[in-house]
Amino acid sequence: MIRHITGFSNETVKRVRSLRDKKHRKREGLFLAEGLRILTEAREAGALPEMLFFAHDGAGHPLAQGLIVETERAGGDVIETTPDILSKLSGKDNAQTLIGVYRDRLTSLDQLNRNASGIWIVAQALRDPGNLGTILRTSDAVGGGGLILVDDCVDPFSVEAVRASMGALFTQTIAATRWDSFVAWLRQGPGQLIGTSLRTEIDYQTPRYEAPTFILVGNEAQGLPAAYEQECDLLVKMPMLGKADSLNAAVATAVMAYEVLNQRRAR
Amino acid sequence: MIRHITGFSNETVKRVRSLRDKKHRKREGLFLAEGLRILTEAREAGALPEMLFFAHDGAGHPLAQGLIVETERAGGDVIETTPDILSKLSGKDNAQTLIGVYRDRLTSLDQLNRNASGIWIVAQALRDPGNLGTILRTSDAVGGGGLILVDDCVDPFSVEAVRASMGALFTQTIAATRWDSFVAWLRQGPGQLIGTSLRTEIDYQTPRYEAPTFILVGNEAQGLPAAYEQECDLLVKMPMLGKADSLNAAVATAVMAYEVLNQRRAR
Repeated sequence: MIRHITGFSNETVKRVRSLRDKKHRKREGLFLAEGLRILTEAREAGALPEMLFFAHDGAGHPLAQGLIVETERAGGDVIETTPDILSKLSGKDNAQTLIGVYRDRLTSLDQLNRNASGIWIVAQALRDPGNLGTILRTSDAVGGGGLILVDDCVDPFSVEAVRASMGALFTQTIAATRWDSFVAWLRQGPGQLIGTSLRTEIDYQTPRYEAPTFILVGNEAQGLPAAYEQECDLLVKMPMLGKADSLNAAVATAVMAYEVLNQRRAR
Repeated sequence: MIRHITGFSNETVKRVRSLRDKKHRKREGLFLAEGLRILTEAREAGALPEMLFFAHDGAGHPLAQGLIVETERAGGDVIETTPDILSKLSGKDNAQTLIGVYRDRLTSLDQLNRNASGIWIVAQALRDPGNLGTILRTSDAVGGGGLILVDDCVDPFSVEAVRASMGALFTQTIAATRWDSFVAWLRQGPGQLIGTSLRTEIDYQTPRYEAPTFILVGNEAQGLPAAYEQECDLLVKMPMLGKADSLNAAVATAVMAYEVLNQRRAR
């Protein structure tokens, strides 16, 4: 049954609004995703929201109808509300017409099946939610398995990261751990750990990468700690002809990931 | 001579603060860049600020000293101020300790030397300042000549775009024009226009690209208009194995630009 909420001070509205803060997301184990496109990607990846908010104008699209029906059928809470309340929930003036509340999707390393894909991304102390979401989107595009977050990374379930992932958040396995735990896990099975670095002469197109390849990307400002580079099976560098001698972290990850993919695909 | 400003209501502070708005940037032909790293990149690319703000704590670094001395020598206005006023200028709580005000750097197409580089990026209706800055940074890395903005793009001199470019804004030629004018200019000389598209079967690693290559990237949400795709000499697609079937615009540009670079470089 569809509930109707029109009051700003409604308890459900307040609670969902609070999911814009990491503290509340963590406590509730829930996060927000916005917009027909991302919610549809989620559904296609098998994820339905626990709560689905829509405004009257947003319900007309067949995909929106499908989401509403399926969310109800799965026992989710479907709520018709006003555009103003949607704006309040999303924190944007021009809100999306659909907002979903999802159970968070963190996987523990011992549940992660490394052989599910030949490409995995490992991010260390990544700080920008846009970069994190963009890396998830790239990982989806190259057929990667997912993203392993090491050390103190930005929350992958922040509204900005979810938005930048364009739905790839729901297709990708996401784990969060510490460096030592990651290395211990990695060395229990097959896997080549590749770091990009300026401290090597090996061009990134020279080695033949072995699957599963774990591409390690460092913090936006600091890059990888030296000790982490030493743990890598291989350090490679991308050509940089410019003066700035650096690439955006999500861009460097993508250039590397497409090289690994290109080595393996039939053309 | 170094001026000292400590008052929030100082006219210079107000004027520089107003450069955070596009309207004022356009009227004054000036923009803001922040932080020792970006200002140093600018200086190495031959650009000194017309005004340079620093707080006492930020002046100790030899590179900061160099900037202060050279800006004064070039007749720039060097201003020592407080961390609070720097925060006000930058709009961030945790402001950079150096802020420069630069003359904007738009080039007209008829002044652009297409043979200066084998790779150029052309962006159409790009809306995200982070993407724009990231594309400039990538263009710098691949030895590209610069960025041609077509139709209604985000302002390349916005604080966010300047920040994301990490200084590449100062190494790259930037032009802004309309589509018809761009095409007319392009066809007056050598140049291959390459669009990435889902409406083609040609893999992006199949063609040998001809220099100068103009890589055309479309709006984040809409992609390229069909008429623009038809004008391309070649449409190519990147493999996308995932469910989302899309890449971030700056990522797609980078993967494409590295392919062009890789075809040309000696390894």
